[in-house]
Amino acid sequence: MQNKKQPDQLICTDTDAAGCAKLLLSSDRILLLCHMKPDGDTLGSAFALCHALKKLGKTVRVECSDGFPARYEVLFGDVPVYKQPEFPPEVVVAVDIADTQLLGVQTSRYKDRIDLCIDHHPSNTRYAKQLFLNGQAAATAELVYQVICEMGVSVDRQIANCIYTGLSTDTGCFRYSNTTSYTMRLAADMMDLGIESYAINRRMLEMKSVGRIQLERIVMDTLEYGFNNRYAVIVISRDAVEETGVQEDELDGIAAYPRQIEGVEIAATLRQKGPEEYRISMRCGIPYNASEICGRLGGGGHARAAGCTLRGTLALVKATLFASVKKAFELDG
Amino acid sequence: MQNKKQPDQLICTDTDAAGCAKLLLSSDRILLLCHMKPDGDTLGSAFALCHALKKLGKTVRVECSDGFPARYEVLFGDVPVYKQPEFPPEVVVAVDIADTQLLGVQTSRYKDRIDLCIDHHPSNTRYAKQLFLNGQAAATAELVYQVICEMGVSVDRQIANCIYTGLSTDTGCFRYSNTTSYTMRLAADMMDLGIESYAINRRMLEMKSVGRIQLERIVMDTLEYGFNNRYAVIVISRDAVEETGVQEDELDGIAAYPRQIEGVEIAATLRQKGPEEYRISMRCGIPYNASEICGRLGGGGHARAAGCTLRGTLALVKATLFASVKKAFELDG
Repeated sequence: MQNKKQPDQLICTDTDAAGCAKLLLSSDRILLLCHMKPDGDTLGSAFALCHALKKLGKTVRVECSDGFPARYEVLFGDVPVYKQPEFPPEVVVAVDIADTQLLGVQTSRYKDRIDLCIDHHPSNTRYAKQLFLNGQAAATAELVYQVICEMGVSVDRQIANCIYTGLSTDTGCFRYSNTTSYTMRLAADMMDLGIESYAINRRMLEMKSVGRIQLERIVMDTLEYGFNNRYAVIVISRDAVEETGVQEDELDGIAAYPRQIEGVEIAATLRQKGPEEYRISMRCGIPYNASEICGRLGGGGHARAAGCTLRGTLALVKATLFASVKKAFELDG
Repeated sequence: MQNKKQPDQLICTDTDAAGCAKLLLSSDRILLLCHMKPDGDTLGSAFALCHALKKLGKTVRVECSDGFPARYEVLFGDVPVYKQPEFPPEVVVAVDIADTQLLGVQTSRYKDRIDLCIDHHPSNTRYAKQLFLNGQAAATAELVYQVICEMGVSVDRQIANCIYTGLSTDTGCFRYSNTTSYTMRLAADMMDLGIESYAINRRMLEMKSVGRIQLERIVMDTLEYGFNNRYAVIVISRDAVEETGVQEDELDGIAAYPRQIEGVEIAATLRQKGPEEYRISMRCGIPYNASEICGRLGGGGHARAAGCTLRGTLALVKATLFASVKKAFELDG
């Protein structure tokens, strides 16, 4: 009501798989958007839908601000991603995108005209005209599978590759707490279609580049403990990243490293952003609150995972962080 | 026929889940044996069977030459493992044990009197009077589940914890190529019984002790590549293991390290057993055959995972192994 330029932003209707199917079946030229820094779920979901819509004779294109990393090539199908058709879209669909900020630079031009969003993030900002949201779903791929079934498309091996990849990558290979028995059975159905699930898992989750192996060695040498091994911190320096040539999407696994250590209750990863600027990612076990620890330093997030940015020399940044962590152990420990 | 002292060794009858159930239902005092260096499948399978047999009023005990590591406590149930009943067994069952050599020192006294073996290793040496073997099963836990169903015992949360642990640990959390859609659906059924699958996976697969973190750093410094990074080898020395105090059951994860490297098709881990004795664990990607590579050196196993023991200086052992790997690349590459 206040912003007359974007009236569509004010009306977001909830829909379901049948509603999504109805909209898509009635359209001919469909654009599917993935979030920036794409992962296996946004890409798997978008390409599953893309392949299904093509089987219905639709003209479809998948776009992502950051392009399509080669490691996901199993999803793309026969048509190379750079040979996708160009067309003025009739319907724009955002897949696995919680907020239009996650569209990234290239696809942000669509932010005010997204007709449908299919997502599993409870934090979805309801920016689309229609929203199919299920915050209980382990992956958006679960919801896309339902839409494909509602459209009456039979799921083939190509689509199964995409759905399985979404499920597997968003659950850490069926390991995280978001994994449900529904997720497991859907993955089983996809496996029965003859996909090479092992190769997908190996490619998406297990394989580390030679550069990443090198970077792990460097980063592990920075590991420090505190508070009787209840606190652990690692540093990923810019020099180390440049020296090893590790890409952004490979750094997440390294950042998770200190929280795998038994007995560590508060784990921090310091990622150097500038000569004297560090981005801190923090993970906490119960009862410690990462959001409070980072909040004291100007950041925020969830109780179990939060972050903040600190400026200064590495020694100063570590000391500042240490002081806030110390407070958490005094208050809650 | 040649060895009159061990006539039982010559007669091994194949059986199935129903046959196992019949034997177990007709017995009252049952001893279940796990293999040495116990893992989640041998322990999960044995304790699942133990809990099921107790529900039928049987007197049951699980034995393992190397004891029961604390990380598996979720399997043990209400009765502490050190308070299990002592009795002369009527029936002795080997669970997930391919060869009597894997019984280890403590339980080797039973090697000539094993009535039943339930196993999924194709290399099983048929040492038991009756053998329920399915080499296609991802884990022995799948077969034990079938036996429990055949006995008419309803699977409860406690049994589900054990079955799920066997499935999850032997498949690297549903990641390895042995995982089938049957494995996934069985895991889903277990999850529906209310188990804390996330906690199990975190405990079994993700958490690392401080000592293990130290050992990883030492071992990673031994990493060497060969054949244009298609072969990778690491060495776990006795000194390193002693220095860090890492327990046997934690070493497996480190052994898997070199095969996670992108492009590596044959990965070997050399574990020092004596001053000049090394145990080799090998993992191969298709089309390379670990069983053949290790077979040439007096060992064996599966096509994707095998092992052998080599004696000599580290340099000699590495060279011997290198030669057999070279042959594999020449023959199959």
